[in-house]
Amino acid sequence: MKLEEIAKEYNCKLVGDGNVEIEGISEIHRAKKGDLTFLTNPKYKRFLKETKASAVLTGSVIEGLKIPQVVCEEPYVVFAKLLQRFYPENLPKPEISERATISQNVKIGKECYIGDFSYIGEGTEIGSNVFIFPGTFIGRNCKIGDGTVIFSNVTIYDNSEIGKFVRIHSGAVIGSDGFGYAFSKKEGKIYKIPQVGRVVIEDFVEIGANTTIDRGTLGETVIGEGTKIDNLVQIGHNVKIGKYCFIVSQVGISGSTKIGDFVTLAGKVGVAGHIEIGNNITVAAKSGVTKSLKEPGVYAGFPAKPYREWRKLQVLIDRLPEVYEKIKKLLGGNGGVSR
Amino acid sequence: MKLEEIAKEYNCKLVGDGNVEIEGISEIHRAKKGDLTFLTNPKYKRFLKETKASAVLTGSVIEGLKIPQVVCEEPYVVFAKLLQRFYPENLPKPEISERATISQNVKIGKECYIGDFSYIGEGTEIGSNVFIFPGTFIGRNCKIGDGTVIFSNVTIYDNSEIGKFVRIHSGAVIGSDGFGYAFSKKEGKIYKIPQVGRVVIEDFVEIGANTTIDRGTLGETVIGEGTKIDNLVQIGHNVKIGKYCFIVSQVGISGSTKIGDFVTLAGKVGVAGHIEIGNNITVAAKSGVTKSLKEPGVYAGFPAKPYREWRKLQVLIDRLPEVYEKIKKLLGGNGGVSR
Amino acid sequence: MKLEEIAKEYNCKLVGDGNVEIEGISEIHRAKKGDLTFLTNPKYKRFLKETKASAVLTGSVIEGLKIPQVVCEEPYVVFAKLLQRFYPENLPKPEISERATISQNVKIGKECYIGDFSYIGEGTEIGSNVFIFPGTFIGRNCKIGDGTVIFSNVTIYDNSEIGKFVRIHSGAVIGSDGFGYAFSKKEGKIYKIPQVGRVVIEDFVEIGANTTIDRGTLGETVIGEGTKIDNLVQIGHNVKIGKYCFIVSQVGISGSTKIGDFVTLAGKVGVAGHIEIGNNITVAAKSGVTKSLKEPGVYAGFPAKPYREWRKLQVLIDRLPEVYEKIKKLLGGNGGVSR
Repeated sequence: MKLEEIAKEYNCKLVGDGNVEIEGISEIHRAKKGDLTFLTNPKYKRFLKETKASAVLTGSVIEGLKIPQVVCEEPYVVFAKLLQRFYPENLPKPEISERATISQNVKIGKECYIGDFSYIGEGTEIGSNVFIFPGTFIGRNCKIGDGTVIFSNVTIYDNSEIGKFVRIHSGAVIGSDGFGYAFSKKEGKIYKIPQVGRVVIEDFVEIGANTTIDRGTLGETVIGEGTKIDNLVQIGHNVKIGKYCFIVSQVGISGSTKIGDFVTLAGKVGVAGHIEIGNNITVAAKSGVTKSLKEPGVYAGFPAKPYREWRKLQVLIDRLPEVYEKIKKLLGGNGGVSR
Repeated sequence: MKLEEIAKEYNCKLVGDGNVEIEGISEIHRAKKGDLTFLTNPKYKRFLKETKASAVLTGSVIEGLKIPQVVCEEPYVVFAKLLQRFYPENLPKPEISERATISQNVKIGKECYIGDFSYIGEGTEIGSNVFIFPGTFIGRNCKIGDGTVIFSNVTIYDNSEIGKFVRIHSGAVIGSDGFGYAFSKKEGKIYKIPQVGRVVIEDFVEIGANTTIDRGTLGETVIGEGTKIDNLVQIGHNVKIGKYCFIVSQVGISGSTKIGDFVTLAGKVGVAGHIEIGNNITVAAKSGVTKSLKEPGVYAGFPAKPYREWRKLQVLIDRLPEVYEKIKKLLGGNGGVSR
Repeated sequence: MKLEEIAKEYNCKLVGDGNVEIEGISEIHRAKKGDLTFLTNPKYKRFLKETKASAVLTGSVIEGLKIPQVVCEEPYVVFAKLLQRFYPENLPKPEISERATISQNVKIGKECYIGDFSYIGEGTEIGSNVFIFPGTFIGRNCKIGDGTVIFSNVTIYDNSEIGKFVRIHSGAVIGSDGFGYAFSKKEGKIYKIPQVGRVVIEDFVEIGANTTIDRGTLGETVIGEGTKIDNLVQIGHNVKIGKYCFIVSQVGISGSTKIGDFVTLAGKVGVAGHIEIGNNITVAAKSGVTKSLKEPGVYAGFPAKPYREWRKLQVLIDRLPEVYEKIKKLLGGNGGVSR
C-alpha cells in the first residue's frame, strides 16, 4: 500500500513523498525499510531520528525529519485501523472437533470452530462464526452470540448469556458462586447463600485472562455493551456495569454495586459493595471507592475523593517534615514535640 | 408452599394473610406474583412499596406495607434456608466418563461424577458423592473427601488432601510451588528451594475461582474447617488458616503466616510472611498487616492498626489543609511556609 | 548420608557427633529421629530445644544445644541443595499421550512427556526433556526450550517463545491480548488496537499459578533470564523485565514499562505504564510506582519514594494527633481548630 493511499483513505495530511510502499507497521526502534512507524506518545519523539522506518504516522507535523509523515487528527485511531488491515486475526478454520463434547440439545450456528477437549453442556445455543478454543467448558443452557471468540481453558457456568462479538481470554471464569454466607448467632453456624442467578455479558464486551465474574445470588450480574475488562479482575455477584467502561487489571468490585456508562476504573482499584458509581467517572489507580460517586470527574485515594482534593492532601503529606519544624520553632527549644 | 407454612417451619412471626402461595424467591424490583421477596439490607426499604412480590421476609415489622410479612430474628439465615429449599443445586448425574482419565490404583467411592477430559493421577482416593467437572486435573496420591464438588479446569497437584463437602471453583490451583529461592553471594547464583510439602484442605471449605494455594516447602499449607475463600486469593507456602474464616477476594497471604479461627480478611488485604493473626480478628479492606495481631477486634490501614486509631488518623489527614492555615496564621504573613 | 559427609560436601563446620545418619530434612516442630532440621530464620530459635531432629543446619554455632550442628556461611543455600538431593522432583515418565493433540508440523525432541487432553498447535517446536501436563494448550508456531516444565491447564498463545528450563505453573496465561483501545472523539467510537506481537520468556524463568502475561501490541513482551514470577501477577503488553528479578504475588505492571536486572517487586506492587525501573532496585510491598526509578536502592509508598523518606512520613503521620494538640495549645483555648 502506497503512503499516499493510506493518507487518502484515512483522511490524513501527507508530508513528503507519497510513493513510498508500506509493507508493515512497526515500533520506532524495531522498524525496518518498508515499515510505517508511529508517534502516539510524545515521550518517544527523540528516538524518531534514528528509526529505519520508511514513514511515520503522527498527530502533528514533526520538524527536521527526513522520512515522509502521515499527519492526522487521531493518530492512535488510524494506527488501530492500519493494524487491523495489515495484520488480520488468524483464527482457526471452522470445524467442530470430534474430540470436543457436544451434549444433547445443543444448537450450533454456521461456520463455528469448536476445539478439542472443549465441552458444551445440554441445551446451550451457540450462534454463527463462534470460536471456542480447546479446553474450554461451557455449562448447560447458555447462549453464545454470533462472532464471539472464547479462548482456551475458559469456564462458563450454567445459564450464562454471552452476547455477539464478545472476546473472552483464557482462564476467565464466568458465573462462579458469589461470596455469600449467613451467620446464625442463634445456632452458631454458617449457612451458604445458594447462588441461583446468572451472568449476562452484552455485545462487544472483552474479558481478560483469568478474570472472574460471579453470577447473581438471585437475578443477574451484567456487563454492559462494549465494556472492556482487563486481566485478573474480580466482579462480584449482582454487579451491574454499564456500557463502554474500561476496567483495568486487578480491579475488584464487590457485590451488588452498580457502575454507570463510560466509567474507567484504573489498575488495582477496589470498589465496595452496594454502592453506585455514576456515568463518565474515572477512578485513578490503587484507589478504594467506599461510597457512591455521582458527579462526573476524576477521583483518587482511599477513600476515593475528587482528584484535586486528593492531590492537595498528597502534597501536604509530603510537606509534613516542614510542619513539624515550624511547630518546633513556634514552641521554642526542641518544640516540646517528642521524638 | 403457603406463607403460614414458611412462618411455622422457620419459626417466624406472620403479619397478614398466611394463605398466600409462595412459588419462588426474588429480588424486590424483579419479584412477580407468587414470589417472596426479602429485606436484609435496610438501604433497599424504600423500594418495597413498589414490589410485585406476594410477601416479604424481614427482620422487623415494616409499617404501611400492603403485602403480608414474615418477620424473623435472623432473616438472612432464613433467606439462605429458603433458597436451598426452593432452588436445590442441579448437579450432573453420577457417571464416570470414558473421556476422563482414571490412572492406575485410583479408588473411587459411590455415586461420583467424573466429567470428560478430567484427569485423576495414580494412587488418588476419591470418596462418595464427589463431583469432578470436565477439564479438572488431580495429581497423584491425593485424597478427596465425600460430597466434595470440584468445578471445571481446576488443578490439584500431587499429594493434596481435600476434605469432605469442600467446594472448589473453576481455575483454582491447589498445591503449586511456593515462592522460595536462596541467593548465594559466594557463588553469585540463585537456587530454587524445592517445594516438597503438600496442601491440606479441611471439611466444608470453599475456594473461589482462580484462587491459588501453594503447597508447603516442607510440611503443610492448611486451610481449616469451614473457612471460605473468595476468588483470586493468593495463599503462600506453609500458611495455616484456622476454622470458619472469611478470606475475601484478592487477599494475599505470604508464606508461613498463621491465622486463627473466625478471622475475616476483607478485599485486597495483604499479610506479611512469618507472622500470626489471632482469633476473632477482622482486617478492613485494602489493609496491609506487617506485624502479628493478637487482640480480637477490627484493624485497618497499612501498617494495620486498631480501626479506631486508623480512623482518627484518616480524619486528621483530611484536616491537613486547616493545619497549614493555622500555622501560617501563627507565624504571621504568609507564615513562612513555603509554597 | 552421614552428617560428617554433609558437612564435608557442602563445606560446613561440624559441631558434635558426625556419625549421625541423616534420612530426611524437616521443620523444627515436625522433625523426627533421623531428620536434619534447619534454622534460617532466628525467630524460630526458641523452638530448637524441643525438636526431635537428630541434627541442625545453622548459620552460626548455637550454644546449649544437645544435638550436633552443621554450621555454614549460607545455610539457606545449603538447605536448598540438600532438599534437591533428598527429594528429587518426581516428574511423569516420558510419553506422548494418544489423548493429546499434536497438530501438523510439530517437532518434538527426545524424552518428552505430553499429557492427556493437552494441545500443541501447528508449527510448534518442542525441545528435549520437556514436560507438558494434561489440559495445557499451546498455540501455533511456538518454541519451547529443552528441560522446560509446563503444568496443567496452562494456556500459551500463538508465536510465543519459551526458553530452556522454564517452569510454568497451572493456570498461567502467556500471550493474551494487551489492553489497548483507541477512542475516536470524531466518530464517538472505540477501536480495538489489534495485538499482533508476541511473548518471549528467556531461560530459567519461573512463572506462578494463574499469572497472566500479555503479548506485545507490536514487538515483544520479554521476561529476562532467571527471573522468578509468583502467582496472580499481571504483566502488560510490551513490558520488558530484565534478568534475575523477583516479581512477587499480585504485582501488576502496566504496558511498555521496562524493568532492569536484579529488581524485586514485593507483593501487590503496582507499576505505571511507559516508565523505567533501573537495576538493583527493590520496591516494598503494596507500593505504587508512578515515575521512573533510576538509583539503585529500596523504595516504598504511593507514589513510590526512597524507603527512608517514606518511613519518615509514616512516622510523622502517626504523630498527627500530637501536632493537633500542639497547635491547639499554641492558639490557646480550644485552639480554634474546629472539631
